Amino acid sequence: MSKELIGAAIFGQSGGPTAVINASAYGVIKTALESPNITKVYGAAHGIKGVLQDKLYVMDEEDPKELELLLHTPSSELGSCRYKMADPEDDDTDYKRILEIFQKYNVRYFFYNGGNDSMDTCNKISRFMAKSGWECRVMGVPKTIDNDLFGTDHCPGFASAAKYIATSCMEISKDARVYDTGMVTVIEIMGRHAGWLAASSALATYYGSGPDLIYLPETNFDMDEFFAEVDNQYNKDHQVLIAVSEGIHYADGTFVSEAKTSATDGFGHAQLGGLAVRLADEIKHRIGVKVRGIELSLLQRCASHSASQTDIDEAFNAGKIAVESAVNGETGKMVAFERDMSSGSYVCKYNLLPLEAVANYEKKVPIEWIKEDGTGMKQEFIDYVLPLIQGEPEIPREYSLPRYAHLKKVLAK
Amino acid sequence: MSKELIGAAIFGQSGGPTAVINASAYGVIKTALESPNITKVYGAAHGIKGVLQDKLYVMDEEDPKELELLLHTPSSELGSCRYKMADPEDDDTDYKRILEIFQKYNVRYFFYNGGNDSMDTCNKISRFMAKSGWECRVMGVPKTIDNDLFGTDHCPGFASAAKYIATSCMEISKDARVYDTGMVTVIEIMGRHAGWLAASSALATYYGSGPDLIYLPETNFDMDEFFAEVDNQYNKDHQVLIAVSEGIHYADGTFVSEAKTSATDGFGHAQLGGLAVRLADEIKHRIGVKVRGIELSLLQRCASHSASQTDIDEAFNAGKIAVESAVNGETGKMVAFERDMSSGSYVCKYNLLPLEAVANYEKKVPIEWIKEDGTGMKQEFIDYVLPLIQGEPEIPREYSLPRYAHLKKVLAK
Repeated sequence: MSKELIGAAIFGQSGGPTAVINASAYGVIKTALESPNITKVYGAAHGIKGVLQDKLYVMDEEDPKELELLLHTPSSELGSCRYKMADPEDDDTDYKRILEIFQKYNVRYFFYNGGNDSMDTCNKISRFMAKSGWECRVMGVPKTIDNDLFGTDHCPGFASAAKYIATSCMEISKDARVYDTGMVTVIEIMGRHAGWLAASSALATYYGSGPDLIYLPETNFDMDEFFAEVDNQYNKDHQVLIAVSEGIHYADGTFVSEAKTSATDGFGHAQLGGLAVRLADEIKHRIGVKVRGIELSLLQRCASHSASQTDIDEAFNAGKIAVESAVNGETGKMVAFERDMSSGSYVCKYNLLPLEAVANYEKKVPIEWIKEDGTGMKQEFIDYVLPLIQGEPEIPREYSLPRYAHLKKVLAK
Repeated sequence: MSKELIGAAIFGQSGGPTAVINASAYGVIKTALESPNITKVYGAAHGIKGVLQDKLYVMDEEDPKELELLLHTPSSELGSCRYKMADPEDDDTDYKRILEIFQKYNVRYFFYNGGNDSMDTCNKISRFMAKSGWECRVMGVPKTIDNDLFGTDHCPGFASAAKYIATSCMEISKDARVYDTGMVTVIEIMGRHAGWLAASSALATYYGSGPDLIYLPETNFDMDEFFAEVDNQYNKDHQVLIAVSEGIHYADGTFVSEAKTSATDGFGHAQLGGLAVRLADEIKHRIGVKVRGIELSLLQRCASHSASQTDIDEAFNAGKIAVESAVNGETGKMVAFERDMSSGSYVCKYNLLPLEAVANYEKKVPIEWIKEDGTGMKQEFIDYVLPLIQGEPEIPREYSLPRYAHLKKVLAK
């Protein structure tokens, strides 16, 4: 164990929220509050913006019972941001301001919870503090429903979104097939560059009823092949359920959702609405059948009522281990997950990765887990995702509705 | 008790599915299978269409354990239809065919599960059988997420949809407020003529965080007043969450969703997409803020994973009581719910109503439960809906995903 470092800690949440990012917050805050080396625990309002604006909530003032409710409270309770910091070599204004705040509150620990961009922010802050001679241990806590963080088997937030998507697709599949008249239903699922979430809809197909066709951004989309597939499927039983990743694109890289009108592969009829509605509309015009477009929208990333207990536990542990590791001398690292199947069943191991190895890379769905014709997932993907969605949390409720954390959010002076 | 009537029973599901219509199916099927007076239990494929087409599934052939899973299986497991029968006075072809089928299988009991139109169908069949001299007891089992059936305090299916809507609105509200940049989010909720479902989003506002503004079809919508309200709300905290019923309409009766482009109250910019997306787009153009439109779509009516146990119990009981009453001599009635608060807490009592008193009427949200300015719900509505959403079911699962009923669906010969 390295030299003891005594001082305050700041924790911040960044990027798009998830169903379990607050479970990581609780892991960090609880562990930090219990650590004898950490004198005070601050939560940054809206991530790094809160540090820059000197808007820090004093976590020591919160009721421990309310903090515990963070385990089941969706979204980013402290507020989030999408704030891209300049390279300190180009412009170090923000970094100097952060140093000023760190000195003002004697901050010796900084924990940042987010995805690719946030790990980049973490990394830059870590390097700047080292250069400035202000001893501060910086740790990244992973988070993203997109599951595209490099160096970790999976990311907290992904599994709960995957479980919600699979469950919703099972329900929609039941509902969409209820009449004996034909129907094509298109479900749009988040994921701009990686198709992990859309792929998870295959769980519904494997374990009940789900999409007949699934399209990911890992392969090139071809509108004519798509219509041929839909037609083929429709002729089989007059019911087609399709799941598409929002990021599907043509071979030239153009997103299907942004493609302009064209005779062969664009949208001739739609001017507004998401990808699902536009694809459904195009099917109606080309094949002439009844259609419905459904966008899972924000629901898929904030559905804490349908979270995976495995995901909640791992999200909490990621936060906890970040704090414990920092107190033990680590810095400039992100907590990463490793899948250990040596016992015959899934065990999650926690590792530390250098931040620069993680920042700004994107992990995609392995192409060999996708069916050769690009319309669905192979068993390998199911084997990957199934252990992650296990376990139903006991949701704290009042009047049979979820009871979320009510934090006081007392500002530091 | 009237004269014993021995013979077969047919059960059918009609109209839009719900999260608990299969719980009513189980109530009917289980009770009928156990009744000594009912010799055989048939399930009609796709409601009355299955009767007309002689497509009847033999429920006696099903595994009782699979049948029990109907309690938690969403949508209409036997298939549904939207089939409007002619008045028998105008055209009795269908009725003669039904009589033929009833005679073929010695059907003496007919149970039909649906909303307004289905009770009308039930009523017509009941009258035709009486006129034809074929003794057959006909009972309606209520169902509709829209909650607009006349003569009953509420309808099976409504409460589970209401609970899903409230929970989803709480989650969306958390998610939509996560950044410190402004945002207006519009959520579109089912309900063409009655606003019970959109009104239920107020549960989120009362018990956590939910919509700031709620609009129902029970009042006239005014686009200028709407923008003024949104503007006013936006100026308060730069975050506005709006819930709209799909059936909101102008004073002249035109649905807002169908209004054509006009300078003052139409959609100048949108050509496709649901009401939420179009309203959001219009707000973006008029007020110039970031917007998001969310349509709860099919999810709200098939989310059995988030059902109300009270709803499941009452749906089952409605089916059970329909069978018991018919065996005891009742006919031409619908099972209706009465709210009994005499003990100080909610108790559901089951009554029988003449079908002709129910058919084709629509029950709307009482205007005195809506705030004077038409932008939200009063305590009276909350008091009405809260007891109905109580209780979380134990969802049967496999691999942490819902396990639905797998019926054999053996066709009668």
